[in-house]
Amino acid sequence: METRHHVVIVGGGFGGLHAARALKRAPVRVTLIDRRNFHLFQPLLYQVATGGLSPADIASPLRGILSHQKNVHVVLGEVTGFDLPNHIVRLADHAIHFDSLIVATGVRHHYFGNTDWEHHAPGLKTIEDALAIRRRILYAFEAAERETDPALVQAWLTFVVVGGGPTGVEMAGAIGEIAHFTLRNNFRSIDPSQARIYLVEGLNQVLSNYRPKLAARAANDLQQMGIDVHLNTMVTDIQADHVVLKSGASTQEIQAKTIIWAAGVQASPLGKQLAGAADAEVDRLGRVLVEPDMSLPNYPHVFVIGDLANRPDVEGQPLPGVALVAIQQGKYVARLLIKRLNNESTSPPFRYINLGSMATIGRARAVADMGWLRLTGYWGWLAWLFVHLMRLVGYENRISVFVQWAYNYVTRNRSARLITGEGE
Amino acid sequence: METRHHVVIVGGGFGGLHAARALKRAPVRVTLIDRRNFHLFQPLLYQVATGGLSPADIASPLRGILSHQKNVHVVLGEVTGFDLPNHIVRLADHAIHFDSLIVATGVRHHYFGNTDWEHHAPGLKTIEDALAIRRRILYAFEAAERETDPALVQAWLTFVVVGGGPTGVEMAGAIGEIAHFTLRNNFRSIDPSQARIYLVEGLNQVLSNYRPKLAARAANDLQQMGIDVHLNTMVTDIQADHVVLKSGASTQEIQAKTIIWAAGVQASPLGKQLAGAADAEVDRLGRVLVEPDMSLPNYPHVFVIGDLANRPDVEGQPLPGVALVAIQQGKYVARLLIKRLNNESTSPPFRYINLGSMATIGRARAVADMGWLRLTGYWGWLAWLFVHLMRLVGYENRISVFVQWAYNYVTRNRSARLITGEGE
Repeated sequence: METRHHVVIVGGGFGGLHAARALKRAPVRVTLIDRRNFHLFQPLLYQVATGGLSPADIASPLRGILSHQKNVHVVLGEVTGFDLPNHIVRLADHAIHFDSLIVATGVRHHYFGNTDWEHHAPGLKTIEDALAIRRRILYAFEAAERETDPALVQAWLTFVVVGGGPTGVEMAGAIGEIAHFTLRNNFRSIDPSQARIYLVEGLNQVLSNYRPKLAARAANDLQQMGIDVHLNTMVTDIQADHVVLKSGASTQEIQAKTIIWAAGVQASPLGKQLAGAADAEVDRLGRVLVEPDMSLPNYPHVFVIGDLANRPDVEGQPLPGVALVAIQQGKYVARLLIKRLNNESTSPPFRYINLGSMATIGRARAVADMGWLRLTGYWGWLAWLFVHLMRLVGYENRISVFVQWAYNYVTRNRSARLITGEGE
Repeated sequence: METRHHVVIVGGGFGGLHAARALKRAPVRVTLIDRRNFHLFQPLLYQVATGGLSPADIASPLRGILSHQKNVHVVLGEVTGFDLPNHIVRLADHAIHFDSLIVATGVRHHYFGNTDWEHHAPGLKTIEDALAIRRRILYAFEAAERETDPALVQAWLTFVVVGGGPTGVEMAGAIGEIAHFTLRNNFRSIDPSQARIYLVEGLNQVLSNYRPKLAARAANDLQQMGIDVHLNTMVTDIQADHVVLKSGASTQEIQAKTIIWAAGVQASPLGKQLAGAADAEVDRLGRVLVEPDMSLPNYPHVFVIGDLANRPDVEGQPLPGVALVAIQQGKYVARLLIKRLNNESTSPPFRYINLGSMATIGRARAVADMGWLRLTGYWGWLAWLFVHLMRLVGYENRISVFVQWAYNYVTRNRSARLITGEGE
């Protein structure tokens, strides 16, 4: 039994989990290592941050997902290093020998060297991040209600989202919904709909990898919801109570107590460690440059997949940092390993099949680009709902999320509006 | 408008919330002060601690609940003191004048002077407590899976619940379910069903205020689920990795990494402050002794209700610390205030109408005592489910909890098995 080919997977996100599942019937044993005991459906994390869903709705215990896949052993632990020539992955208190290794530890947020910004403008990558952002957004309305100085009331009611990618667009839209609908009648001194919400993007369109026409529609939808969209605008300073924007030659200081970072990501530090152990290269975001079959140069049995990997598509274009790329890469590497074990000819290079991208802007508003079909408004939103529900892991999560979305749609409520955990 | 009679309520638990709601049509303005932005349905908190439900399922934002009750102003803040002769409640940064005051800040856990036990044996009163206990329980199985020393494996798989009241019984039963059913097939090195679960109670029956026959049935149900019930047993020491039990002349040391405190409560510190400001008495648990109409001696416009109040029933028996007592007292005081404003004759003393008590032991097992009807097993459990669903605040929570319970019943799963937040 222990002589079977041993595949070690580091990271239980989309890439790692789908690689493990695709090895279900393979004559291998699999060890899946993650620091957390659950798989997180990150595309819906902004809904946890804005009180629409609970953490458990979008997270599934890895052991539960894989309980019936007998060839998988889940290890809760943190990888501290690699010894590739000896086929070893090191954890804090022990080491694991592998025959093949798949590293898929993704990315986290990145402040372009301005590490002091993190304290004032938290990013959104983990459940804890989402609950901290939820706490800040809800607390801001509470503080405004208590405040008597009109300038401070307005600063508490001002929200700045930095970065116009899908996360930024969805966060800004959701804060707009909260201010205009969810909190209606909730306060006696302030009017939550007086909130000002800014979405700041450095490029000349939001959703930079969407067609300009769809991106313009998204920006227009946001503006109709009362969100101030600033394109071609850089953030030059972030402090506890204000943010400085620079657009061309003009700068503007916005008094805002709540600033949310959705602008930049960098690779998990394991990328650099792995590259160092293999004499491989990383790009400026710390992502590992890999071969066309997602393996490390000179280490054909070591693979990097998902956001941690830098592998342009066959036309030389970078792939987007989305779940679907990671999923397809995970399945691709699993198939490749099975072929190798069967001594079949090696696979063709990984090729991403773009099934489309979609972002929701608010109630009944979304943009979806599936190549052959572009949807906006209500139909885009229905497509978004359907795809995200179907991709959620676990039937129970699907039912629970569906019930809550249906309820939220009818009542415009968001029931998970809890201020919990440590305050500031 | 501001000249209307001003009722200030401190605490948005069962007592405070129901007092506020019962004043809906009264010619008063109400200020409800709470440190948290939500009302918590504490009877189901143990289900959050054991991964069956999410915090948002059992908590509802106070502003949302009261958004359509225009005469209520919700204040998020912490009361720091009272000046009763001047009719003033003090908060950190301001003071509020009241005409009538209702204090309902409840109880927290209490370690009978052994404050160092708290670190090793957390209690269950807040959302944060529940998530910390959830983390400990789930992490214990993870640690056991990784451990190689058989004695340590067993210590990680040993759980001690101190206190055989409803919370202790429900916690022990839920841990039994997790070990025997939920985690089945989840681990490769350990067998979760080898877990040992102890329930320790100082008196000669669990559920001390139930009839002995029903309590014996509950203890029997627990034992059938593999839980070791120790009656007439005191805890004399708690450390990080063991607990010492004393029963008669014999002592026993149990090696256990997970110890949960469900044994004692004491009044919120505001009780003592209020009593001090009024020259009133508190009992040894810090609860305030009140008049038959729940008012403070010499301060007929200041009331204490719920767990914070000590007022025996008309037969001189102490009232149980349950939601129903607090709810009835909240409504009683609201009615009394309305009568006073109408110059009607004062109310008769508060009289508790006991609608029964119930505790669930596990899947399809519960005991319910409604006086005229006693239920056990499956029927007790159905009654428990129905009553708790109906008492939950908010339709959405009811639907969401119902879906999850139905799903958990069929699959024996608990989907909120997430290890989140700060580890130890």
